Order: sequence, then structure tokens, then C-alpha cells
Amino acid sequence: MEAFSDGVLAIIITIMVLELKVPHGADFASLKPLLPVFLSYVLSFIYIAIYWNNHHHMMHAVHKVTGTVLWANVHLLFWLSLFPFCTAWMGENNFGLWPVVLYGTVAAMAGIAYYILAHCLASIHGKDSTIAKALGKDRKGIISVVLYLAGIGLAFINAWVGFSMYVLVAAIWFIPDRRIEKNLEQ
Amino acid sequence: MEAFSDGVLAIIITIMVLELKVPHGADFASLKPLLPVFLSYVLSFIYIAIYWNNHHHMMHAVHKVTGTVLWANVHLLFWLSLFPFCTAWMGENNFGLWPVVLYGTVAAMAGIAYYILAHCLASIHGKDSTIAKALGKDRKGIISVVLYLAGIGLAFINAWVGFSMYVLVAAIWFIPDRRIEKNLEQ
Amino acid sequence: MEAFSDGVLAIIITIMVLELKVPHGADFASLKPLLPVFLSYVLSFIYIAIYWNNHHHMMHAVHKVTGTVLWANVHLLFWLSLFPFCTAWMGENNFGLWPVVLYGTVAAMAGIAYYILAHCLASIHGKDSTIAKALGKDRKGIISVVLYLAGIGLAFINAWVGFSMYVLVAAIWFIPDRRIEKNLEQ
Amino acid sequence: MEAFSDGVLAIIITIMVLELKVPHGADFASLKPLLPVFLSYVLSFIYIAIYWNNHHHMMHAVHKVTGTVLWANVHLLFWLSLFPFCTAWMGENNFGLWPVVLYGTVAAMAGIAYYILAHCLASIHGKDSTIAKALGKDRKGIISVVLYLAGIGLAFINAWVGFSMYVLVAAIWFIPDRRIEKNLEQ
Repeated sequence: MEAFSDGVLAIIITIMVLELKVPHGADFASLKPLLPVFLSYVLSFIYIAIYWNNHHHMMHAVHKVTGTVLWANVHLLFWLSLFPFCTAWMGENNFGLWPVVLYGTVAAMAGIAYYILAHCLASIHGKDSTIAKALGKDRKGIISVVLYLAGIGLAFINAWVGFSMYVLVAAIWFIPDRRIEKNLEQ
Repeated sequence: MEAFSDGVLAIIITIMVLELKVPHGADFASLKPLLPVFLSYVLSFIYIAIYWNNHHHMMHAVHKVTGTVLWANVHLLFWLSLFPFCTAWMGENNFGLWPVVLYGTVAAMAGIAYYILAHCLASIHGKDSTIAKALGKDRKGIISVVLYLAGIGLAFINAWVGFSMYVLVAAIWFIPDRRIEKNLEQ
Repeated sequence: MEAFSDGVLAIIITIMVLELKVPHGADFASLKPLLPVFLSYVLSFIYIAIYWNNHHHMMHAVHKVTGTVLWANVHLLFWLSLFPFCTAWMGENNFGLWPVVLYGTVAAMAGIAYYILAHCLASIHGKDSTIAKALGKDRKGIISVVLYLAGIGLAFINAWVGFSMYVLVAAIWFIPDRRIEKNLEQ
Repeated sequence: MEAFSDGVLAIIITIMVLELKVPHGADFASLKPLLPVFLSYVLSFIYIAIYWNNHHHMMHAVHKVTGTVLWANVHLLFWLSLFPFCTAWMGENNFGLWPVVLYGTVAAMAGIAYYILAHCLASIHGKDSTIAKALGKDRKGIISVVLYLAGIGLAFINAWVGFSMYVLVAAIWFIPDRRIEKNLEQ
């Protein structure tokens, strides 16, 4: 399961660059319209890297896998697979309202899918397992989804304010899930 | 063999998203024409995930690999590799007759290829092997191909009725192959 | 080295399908112009599968890897990476003279690169190694390159005659390299 | 970490070929405008192969991985992921000033990112570790970045002179990092 997920994440993070369309002109000015697409690319690159990082840490605390877990994992990969599309739409439209709303929606669905996968794994391994203890009340996971929803709402006032909520989520997840890391060491 | 197959499946499932062409407009309405492409994408995503899942389970019950098995596997990957093309054609033409027929044909060929691979592996491992017992009469595999052929036929009456047959196949395969799983546990 | 090569081969074999451009029409007739592209796709799919198969078998007989071997491998991957381009050019131009010549040139270079890699590995492992014995005089490798060159020459008379030489090479390699397989078993 | 990095590098090196757009004509002359794109492709292929080679060697000398290392690695992959874009822009514009400057900038950033990753790993493993000794004063890494910066500067005089600096860097890295290889053997 980990090899397949790692493969899918590696492909998602790399094919996003295909949406950075090569400009026809050769002067410095022809790069300028690419700036929002690039900004959008950087955020999504960090997001997918965070998911890979946390997914990777989580898998190392896993001992059993059931059919339900496999499908919870596919469900997560599905939402992550939509990132290249959303990234391109948001970038090419210079962070317009609906692209920012869609990006937040897909990001929130991915967050919920990760939450489901994590809790699915925790319930299989039992209350006293490394993974269940590490998740605890999973405040970070819940806060992320709340921030995505806040971002979607705020986008209707100002798309950039909404977008800044997504940047905030990336910032709080930037550090790999120390909860699992700490519990694993013991 | 498993690493290569996993890689190919991971790439197929991910590059399909490249056919979800980014719309030029930035308003909500510009997403609407993408709905059939998205629906087509969701079905194919589930199909490839099912194949990965079952392929993965099958490989864990395998001890010997021959040249014939290698080519039976490449044959399966060939038909699966045509999914991104069929998915896009069916989605972009809003489930027209011929795209639905082609999708069903490729899906049926993939089903037959999986059947050949499974029986090839079963015959190598002998009548009493985990894999042979697990397959049994392989009703599910045969029913799938019958449903695909029914879907192709029904598409000439109504493309959506034909398409619903393909959804039905996905539904009956949704649960990982418990036959192998059960026999492996013993 | 095997994981990286397997990854590159899995990507090459899969992204070739992106050159099968989705037709705009939805009727049966719109598939017809795709036929030469599809034929070209099938041949290249078989070629890459053969390379993966033989590369995979060869790697299992390998115990030592040097810097030279790593670069001989990268050299092989380079020529194989040009297959999606040549496949598309040959298919889209309905097997015209120059596309057929280029396809044969790239195929011949890949054949030579495989020959270099194999002999590089054989010389490192010594005269009495499994890999050296398995290669023997490597008639099959030499015949392939000769057939490619013949195909390039014949293409100037008739492109389809030239192309049939490439099909012949695929036919003689279709069976995995039994030489290595046999020697490994002992 | 190695599997994910290998995956990303395998994808980068392979999708670059998608930027070698298939020409519409079928005659020999229609290949001619592709020459600069091909030249650009060859250089980038060698670069990514060098990074894979050295990254691979470095990972084999690594025993501990921290959160900081994971992010230093993602940082390196980020700059490498921009290669397909820069390669295409430089090739399609026949080595114009700004494309050559951008290529050098991304290459320099990747060089700096590799330097950071290597020193991050060396500091974790301690002064007397294989990896720290192998790096030594890391002259090669520093010289590369200096050559990239020289190339960027020289591009303002003549783009080809600037470009030749990048070729020089590829030449000095062509041989896998013998420093680590040598120390590993002891």
C-alpha cells in the first residue's frame, strides 16, 4: 500500500509542473504572467510534500491493513489527485473567487479523507496502540479542515484573504507529525 | 513484477487527471461542461484502484513466475493503459454511443486479461494452491465480462443504460477479493 | 539502480498513451485516423515491455555495480526515453519515410546501448559468471541491431517493408531471455 | 525517503520528453527546428541522472533521518521539478538570453539545495561519519554553484558562452561521487 501511495504522490507532485505552460516569448516580461501559476504551484508542492511526509510517518506505525483501510487510502489519493487541476485553475485565473473556493474544497476533502484514514487505522490498532496515542484528539487535523472552510467563506469577501487561510494550514503542518514520531521513539 | 505493475497502475490513475482540461473562464459556470469528464474520471479511478487492489492481493499468493505469466501481466497492463484515452473520449463527448461502446470494450478486454493472468497463475501453482482455491470457479470474473458485453449491447438502445452496467461491475468488485484474503489467512 | 530503471520504464510505457490524442468527434469514423497511431503504440508498448523483462532478468544475475555500469544504464534509458516521441511521429504521419527511419535509428541505438550495458556487466563479473555465460556470443543482440539497420535501409524503398523489420525484432525477443533464465536455475 | 525521491527523479527525467513536441510535417526538415530543444533535453537528462546518481550514493551512507533532512530533501526536489519547464523554455527559444539565465538560476538553486541537504546529513552523523569525511570541504559542490553564477553573468555577453559553463558543470560531475564511494569501501 505504501509503495503505491508513494508512487501516486510522487507523480502528482511532479506532473503539476506540466501546468506551468512554457511561454512563447523569450524575454523577461513573458515570465510575469506565470507568477500566480508559480505561486499556486509552490503551495501545492508543499501540501503534497506534507501529505507524503505524514502519510509516510503514519504507515510506519501501522501493523494491520484491512479492506476498509485500503479504500480509505484510495479515497485520500482521489482528492489529492485533483490538486494539479485545482492548482492550474487557481493560478491561471490569478486567484479568482471560484478557483480559490474549489481549491479550498478539494483541500478540505483531502483533509477529511486523511482524518478518516487515520481514525480508521487507529480503531483497528486499538486504544493503546502507537498510532491511536499519537493521534490523540487530532486537534491539528480538525483545525485544518476548519481553516479550509473559513478560507472558502472568506474568499467571498476577498479571494486573497481566503487563500491566506490555506497558507496558514500549510504553515501549521510544515513540521512532520511529531506526535507519531515521539511516540514511535519510546 | 509487482513493483513495475504498481508503478504503471500508479501512473495510469494519476495521468488521467491531465485529461481534465483546465477551463479558460474563472466563474462557476465554466466548471459545468467538465461534469461528464469528472464523472468518467471518478469511474475510471475506482476501476484502476480495484485492479491495483486485486492485483496486489493476487501477487501475495504467488510463489512462482514464468515467462507466460510475465506476458499475461503485460497484456493486462496494455488494456489498462488505454483507460486514460477512453475515459477522456467518453467524458468529453458527454457519454455518446461510440465512446461508451469503446470504454466497455477496453474494460471487457482488461477483464478478460485479468482472467487469463489469474488462471495462468492458478495452473502454475497447482489445484491445491491458495490461489487456485481462492479463484474457484471465478464467477465474479465471468460475471464482470458478461456485464461489460451487456453494457456494450444496451448502449445502442441508450448510452446511459449501457454505462450503468459498467457502474454495476465497479460496485460488485468494490470489496477487495475476500476469496483470496480468506484463504490466505488459513 | 533497478528501482529507478523500473520507474523510468513504467513511466515511458504509460505516458506514450498521452500521444493518442482524444478525437473531437464522437462517431466511429473519428477513431479511424487514430489507427496508425494505435499500431505504432502497440509496437512500442511491446518493445518497452521486452526491455523491462530482459533488464529485470539481467539485474537478477548482477552482483556488482560500478560507475561505468550506472552510466551505461542511463545511456540505455536515454534512448528508451525517446520512444514516446518517435512513436507519436511515426503514428501521426501514417508511417512516412523519415518517421520510420527515425524510429529505427532510436531503436537501433537502444539496442546498442543494451549491448554495451550487458557486456559491461559481463566483463565486471568475469568470464565464468552467470551473466557472461548467459550472454555467450549474444547473437540475438547483434541480429536485432542488424535488423534495425536493414529496416532503415529498406524504408527508403517502402516504409512498410522497413517497419516489418522492426516487428520481426519484437517477435524474436518476445520470449524472455531464456539464456539467463536457464543459467540462473542451475 | 529514497523511494519517493527516486520516484520523483524518474518522473522528472521522463516527462521532459513531453516537451519535445511532435512536428506536424513528416520530412527530414521538420526535425531541424527541434535541434535546440533536443540539445537542451540531453543536458537536462544528464543533470537529473547525475543528481539521481549522487543522491543514491549519499542515501547509502545515511543512517538517521530527521524532519529537517526530509524538508531539505523536498527543497531539492522542488528545484529539480522546475527542470522540465526551464529545459523547454531554453530549447524552444533557441538559447535566448533570459531562458539561459533562468536555466542557470534553477540549476544554481538545485546545487545550493543539494549542498544544504548534504551538510545537513553530515552534521547529524557527526564529524567522523562516512558522509562527513566523504564531503570534506565539498569543493565540487561549491565550484558548481560558482560556475552556474559565472554562466548567468556570461549569458549577458553571449548566451552560448553562458550555456557552456553549464555543460562544464555536467562534465565535472559526470563521474559518480567517488569520495563517498571510496570512504564506503573502507
